[in-house]
Amino acid sequence: MVDINYPFRTTQINGEPLKPLTEVIRQRRATLHFTPEPVPRDVLENILRLGLLAPSGYNLQPWRFILVEDEAHRRKLQAAAFNQAKVAEAPVVIIACGDKQAYRRDLDEIIEEGIRRGVGTPEAKEKAKQAALQFLDSQEMNVWVHRHTMIAVTHMMLAAEAYGFDTAPMEGFEEDKVKQAFDIPESVRVVCLLAIGHARMPDKKFPGRHDLKRVVFHEQWGRS
Amino acid sequence: MVDINYPFRTTQINGEPLKPLTEVIRQRRATLHFTPEPVPRDVLENILRLGLLAPSGYNLQPWRFILVEDEAHRRKLQAAAFNQAKVAEAPVVIIACGDKQAYRRDLDEIIEEGIRRGVGTPEAKEKAKQAALQFLDSQEMNVWVHRHTMIAVTHMMLAAEAYGFDTAPMEGFEEDKVKQAFDIPESVRVVCLLAIGHARMPDKKFPGRHDLKRVVFHEQWGRS
Repeated sequence: MVDINYPFRTTQINGEPLKPLTEVIRQRRATLHFTPEPVPRDVLENILRLGLLAPSGYNLQPWRFILVEDEAHRRKLQAAAFNQAKVAEAPVVIIACGDKQAYRRDLDEIIEEGIRRGVGTPEAKEKAKQAALQFLDSQEMNVWVHRHTMIAVTHMMLAAEAYGFDTAPMEGFEEDKVKQAFDIPESVRVVCLLAIGHARMPDKKFPGRHDLKRVVFHEQWGRS
Repeated sequence: MVDINYPFRTTQINGEPLKPLTEVIRQRRATLHFTPEPVPRDVLENILRLGLLAPSGYNLQPWRFILVEDEAHRRKLQAAAFNQAKVAEAPVVIIACGDKQAYRRDLDEIIEEGIRRGVGTPEAKEKAKQAALQFLDSQEMNVWVHRHTMIAVTHMMLAAEAYGFDTAPMEGFEEDKVKQAFDIPESVRVVCLLAIGHARMPDKKFPGRHDLKRVVFHEQWGRS
């Protein structure tokens, strides 16, 4: 099990303290081009572990990740991603997946582990299980796995930036081709790709965002 | 337009520096019960602005948010959310939505604003627009709006925690009822709810997570 007390690295790759979240979010751009400089193993493991601590409904963690580092594999992924240069340039690309069937295999074990950790009681186990299954059966699973996987991906993206790396989240890929190239099962969706590395400067410019009052409403849709 | 140079608040509500991202992620729990203590206006605005800086495909920002603070409205939302106590308890609940049609209205303006900021050129505008529309027409829009909205929601959740608040992301609601209660248009999906406030102690325990080697593969699905 992923350990909540894992001694997370608390410095950037340049030795400075982690970037504060405000700076991470402000400085993050979807990087267009990466240098070949690698992401050290221990940093990558920290980024992944911070992703796996994301929340999910009933703690079901339907996300699965494939780390693509080998150059031949990155080129194979690039071919399934409209030939985007950054996919082959970045030293690491994570294929973020959502498994639509994993909950059926994992639910019992997750509830039991929770009980061992003081979440719920053995007496309530069967009821919790039935409630979860009833809820899940009501969900559109394609949407459901995307909803959850994107939380973990966003954790990883922000963690990588906080450690002083650059990232590019991507939805530009042909899912069937990615699945075929990496042996991804039928019941699994490819949710997004996340490239991590160092930007080849200059990085992309900030393209602007909608005004707060255009996208945030008060108490009711459309009311500002 | 949301300003990248906005002077984001850099201290927690208790006056200490922002929590580092590693601590934010480690300490975050999906809070079950909130105290009535409010979230100050300026902190809430910082959280929202940090959410709106999330990345999205073609910068299309399909997310829309409804801030629910009024007690009567929180009770109305609670009734559409399986009567969960935290929805009525938390001083703020954000209804995170994804608008499936907004890109048709917004695309021209977003491309033009990007060009003004040095992303793309006026000559390439029409080509960029056609490429975006062609891509979007190939996407499942229910999935697409969830993918993007969850990035912004995750920014907000982590920002709220970094400022010293507690959060609860929720997918337990009846979408039709939420839409009806808050006048949300037909073409808009309710993606999740995010409650923000202070946890009534003791907060929930950490329920554990899958092992790294169970959910992270190397170079190919299933290979650890």
